Amino acid sequence: MASIAFIGLGNMGLPMALNLIKAGHTVHGADLSAEQLSKLEAGGGKAAGSANAAVGEAEIVVTMLPSGREVGMLYLGENGFLSVAKPGTLFIDSSTIDVETARKVADAASAAGQLMVDAPVSGGVGGATAGTLTFMVGGPDNAFEAAKPFLDIMGKTIVHAGGAGNGQAAKICNNMLLGISMIGVCEAFVLAEKLGLDHQKLFDISSTASGQCWSLTTYCPVPGPVPTSPANNDYKAGFAAAMMLKDLKLAQGAASHVGASTPLGAAASQAYGLFVGAGQGGTDFSGIINFLRGED
Amino acid sequence: MASIAFIGLGNMGLPMALNLIKAGHTVHGADLSAEQLSKLEAGGGKAAGSANAAVGEAEIVVTMLPSGREVGMLYLGENGFLSVAKPGTLFIDSSTIDVETARKVADAASAAGQLMVDAPVSGGVGGATAGTLTFMVGGPDNAFEAAKPFLDIMGKTIVHAGGAGNGQAAKICNNMLLGISMIGVCEAFVLAEKLGLDHQKLFDISSTASGQCWSLTTYCPVPGPVPTSPANNDYKAGFAAAMMLKDLKLAQGAASHVGASTPLGAAASQAYGLFVGAGQGGTDFSGIINFLRGED
Amino acid sequence: MASIAFIGLGNMGLPMALNLIKAGHTVHGADLSAEQLSKLEAGGGKAAGSANAAVGEAEIVVTMLPSGREVGMLYLGENGFLSVAKPGTLFIDSSTIDVETARKVADAASAAGQLMVDAPVSGGVGGATAGTLTFMVGGPDNAFEAAKPFLDIMGKTIVHAGGAGNGQAAKICNNMLLGISMIGVCEAFVLAEKLGLDHQKLFDISSTASGQCWSLTTYCPVPGPVPTSPANNDYKAGFAAAMMLKDLKLAQGAASHVGASTPLGAAASQAYGLFVGAGQGGTDFSGIINFLRGED
Amino acid sequence: MASIAFIGLGNMGLPMALNLIKAGHTVHGADLSAEQLSKLEAGGGKAAGSANAAVGEAEIVVTMLPSGREVGMLYLGENGFLSVAKPGTLFIDSSTIDVETARKVADAASAAGQLMVDAPVSGGVGGATAGTLTFMVGGPDNAFEAAKPFLDIMGKTIVHAGGAGNGQAAKICNNMLLGISMIGVCEAFVLAEKLGLDHQKLFDISSTASGQCWSLTTYCPVPGPVPTSPANNDYKAGFAAAMMLKDLKLAQGAASHVGASTPLGAAASQAYGLFVGAGQGGTDFSGIINFLRGED
Repeated sequence: MASIAFIGLGNMGLPMALNLIKAGHTVHGADLSAEQLSKLEAGGGKAAGSANAAVGEAEIVVTMLPSGREVGMLYLGENGFLSVAKPGTLFIDSSTIDVETARKVADAASAAGQLMVDAPVSGGVGGATAGTLTFMVGGPDNAFEAAKPFLDIMGKTIVHAGGAGNGQAAKICNNMLLGISMIGVCEAFVLAEKLGLDHQKLFDISSTASGQCWSLTTYCPVPGPVPTSPANNDYKAGFAAAMMLKDLKLAQGAASHVGASTPLGAAASQAYGLFVGAGQGGTDFSGIINFLRGED
Repeated sequence: MASIAFIGLGNMGLPMALNLIKAGHTVHGADLSAEQLSKLEAGGGKAAGSANAAVGEAEIVVTMLPSGREVGMLYLGENGFLSVAKPGTLFIDSSTIDVETARKVADAASAAGQLMVDAPVSGGVGGATAGTLTFMVGGPDNAFEAAKPFLDIMGKTIVHAGGAGNGQAAKICNNMLLGISMIGVCEAFVLAEKLGLDHQKLFDISSTASGQCWSLTTYCPVPGPVPTSPANNDYKAGFAAAMMLKDLKLAQGAASHVGASTPLGAAASQAYGLFVGAGQGGTDFSGIINFLRGED
Repeated sequence: MASIAFIGLGNMGLPMALNLIKAGHTVHGADLSAEQLSKLEAGGGKAAGSANAAVGEAEIVVTMLPSGREVGMLYLGENGFLSVAKPGTLFIDSSTIDVETARKVADAASAAGQLMVDAPVSGGVGGATAGTLTFMVGGPDNAFEAAKPFLDIMGKTIVHAGGAGNGQAAKICNNMLLGISMIGVCEAFVLAEKLGLDHQKLFDISSTASGQCWSLTTYCPVPGPVPTSPANNDYKAGFAAAMMLKDLKLAQGAASHVGASTPLGAAASQAYGLFVGAGQGGTDFSGIINFLRGED
Repeated sequence: MASIAFIGLGNMGLPMALNLIKAGHTVHGADLSAEQLSKLEAGGGKAAGSANAAVGEAEIVVTMLPSGREVGMLYLGENGFLSVAKPGTLFIDSSTIDVETARKVADAASAAGQLMVDAPVSGGVGGATAGTLTFMVGGPDNAFEAAKPFLDIMGKTIVHAGGAGNGQAAKICNNMLLGISMIGVCEAFVLAEKLGLDHQKLFDISSTASGQCWSLTTYCPVPGPVPTSPANNDYKAGFAAAMMLKDLKLAQGAASHVGASTPLGAAASQAYGLFVGAGQGGTDFSGIINFLRGED
């Protein structure tokens, strides 16, 4: 059994850490919230004196942080995780951050003699709790192989997307497409209803035709056709609009950096920006249909 | 066996008419092109002296015309099809036109004692030839029931989308979503490649995740992952960009008319407008990936 | 002094008609609203028994109608204005309508031996009342010359934009640019304030630099820099957002019809669509800054 | 007379440095290009042994660098400009960079006991040569006062936009508005011409109406109305499309960072991205009209 430091015990990080504990591993956790640390201890984990203390003792370090800013600040520098860890420590950064920072930190890890993967997730709090997350992983083969047994505990689908940063790249490419297709589906339903075409009719037609997409057939933004979708539960997230906006902004930042044209990604990012600006950041991202429809 | 007038024998109309002939029906065709009429005759059909002559003798009239302008001009007025046909004639308009004109003509058909459905298709020239088109049908139940045996000859999937105009509504809603998701897929691939993420990797991940859509998994716009897609055949259409632009414009016109907000539909329409403006109207609509990438 | 039929006595039409009366002309008005007709009579005009009765007696007909649909219905056909008027009657259509209908009606006027100009206005209710409207006029030279003395009574700036329909074309081109630049100014102010740059500072810089535009220097969407702008009066219209949306939709319709690419016009139309959909149609169009800012 | 280090002697930096020399100051220049250094020497300046050597000896340091990356690398760190300069040195960074980096470097300058302003310019190579640039300046009052006499030599309009980073903020807000209004003007002209409305007519109308803007009346993107505009010189830059794209990307990055909604700024950035991607980066930014028109 391994000794694991888990840094960042929020809505996602805590259930992920608890699944590692259930699998028999020793987890020393660090978080700014005393309440989250208590929950970790209640689940059999240990509250570390500090993040660095936890990292210094660990064989494996998992981080789940809000953005590239925090990842850069905590990993890099003289007192950063990469310096205080024992050589050969395995780092798994499951934060969703910008590709550029992910690659910069990975380079620093390599220079410091550490193993590292970027491994952002999809699947939400539900998937984190159930241990059914999808991990999109970037990093060298040996780091991926070392990380995989632990990712298997926390998730169901583990994909090796290539070298450092490619986990992040895969996530933002997929989620940019998701944000675009969700708005597309919402627009199609709004146009249909204003033209007098039933939701169910459009669903029946497009779900078996060229308009088929996951946003339609698995996560349908109108109540009815897909009973498990958030639309049937008053658009309770699910995947909050604010999180979609975060991913779309990361995609736009990356596209700007590498010179990729993404006219619909840009328009989708702006639409979610207006939706979140209207106070709907906590609503499921499929709820943008009400914003398009002109309801509140 | 029925006596059918078929008006409009272009790339789509001719093979549709030939399938009706093969099924044993008598088809009198009308078209401005002598060449197309010769092909009809070679296939066992008859060239009518005029469109009105064909319509006046027919039990069933099928029209396949370029736009609502032609449909309105030919159907309406004192010498229009609806007036010169025998009462109780069944009209099947398979043109893709604006919803407003479709409903106006349907109202006139009803007033003239004729049966009518709007029945636009998807499936392209290949589907028209093979008799595997999808028909999205709008009109009253009795007209749909009367039309169905003939649509079954020309197509494989026949959907009754509701009252008059709903066939057109279904088609533009679906194809607006298709145009949006195709550009979304193209943007995701371009961003991925500029970030160093392999096409196949992104395909493997998104095809089983929340980015899954028909444009990705059936009609993939990069060569490789889906061998039958036009990307593997130098973007030979398939479904030409100019046709996608036509459908997106119809969707925008309808959205403007009924007051539906479609920010991504509008952006997709503009993107295809620029692509077609750059001389690529005959290219398959998935070829817009090269325009986004900055290649020619 | 001339005998004038004035059809459409709404917020704009009534004060325009009253200015013609003040200049000494005889005005027979028609409108569905008894209240508006009473106001016309109180101002010295006469309520016609019907629109056609007024038109049949007039030397000059001015129309101020909501859209191309009404213009087409009233002007065309056996009992339309063009038929019931005396040959050689001068028609001035000051409605803002689509270019296509304007040209179709102008052709019919010419065929019927009538003189006609399309002459949409800008300047709002204030300009209509003060007689300071701008008229953008399309039509043949002789019709323009005949109309000019009457336009001079109702307006201050009278521009001959070319042949039939060019008045409408000029208005939608100008107002599309206006809608785009207003949103551009609003975005610049919102970005500035979130970056800690004072409104007045940005105004001082851009008003004398390459960002200068009418939306900034005459109609500034933030309170302060231009004391007369609606921003200083709680965004009371002025030029209502719903009217801007109408013009942007006309521009989009025309652009689609003639195949012009207008990516920013499309995005502006969508932004105003969302703003109006959020219940802000009566707000001045500069009030969209609050929508962009995420306030309500 | 002051001793000035000038770092970055490109198309803009070299003529700016030469103007300082002409005014009697001693300039030690540094650049990677031997050719540019020769030109500086030919103009009376001195080629420094290294950038740090020049900075270490100077009373005033002017930098003109490509992006925030270079500014951060050269100013910060143990051997950065801020460390090797004598305490109390005045730094003028005239590079156009992101607001975030500008503020980070300004904070470091303050901590190191240096005076600093960010002072990006507009006016192009012509303005740099003629000494008629506009400087938008951010920084504390004493730094602005110290810098002003030197900015007056290189420019004509010197605006103090507020604290550190506000020079950059002002520039990107103004240029985002410029990019938006230029595309808006181009779209209006393209729509006008396809509707049969003369360029000159639209110019005459909009230049005195609510569509008036600098992009129309000073930098008109069609040949004719404004004889000095690049449209009359085959769209030779002027202000290259690639530079406009750079500024629009900076604006998008800042907007994403501070949470400002900029739907038209995003669309403008995408449009210039496609234009530059089509190989037109060196064309004047008004040349995007040909891209919209569908010509090459």
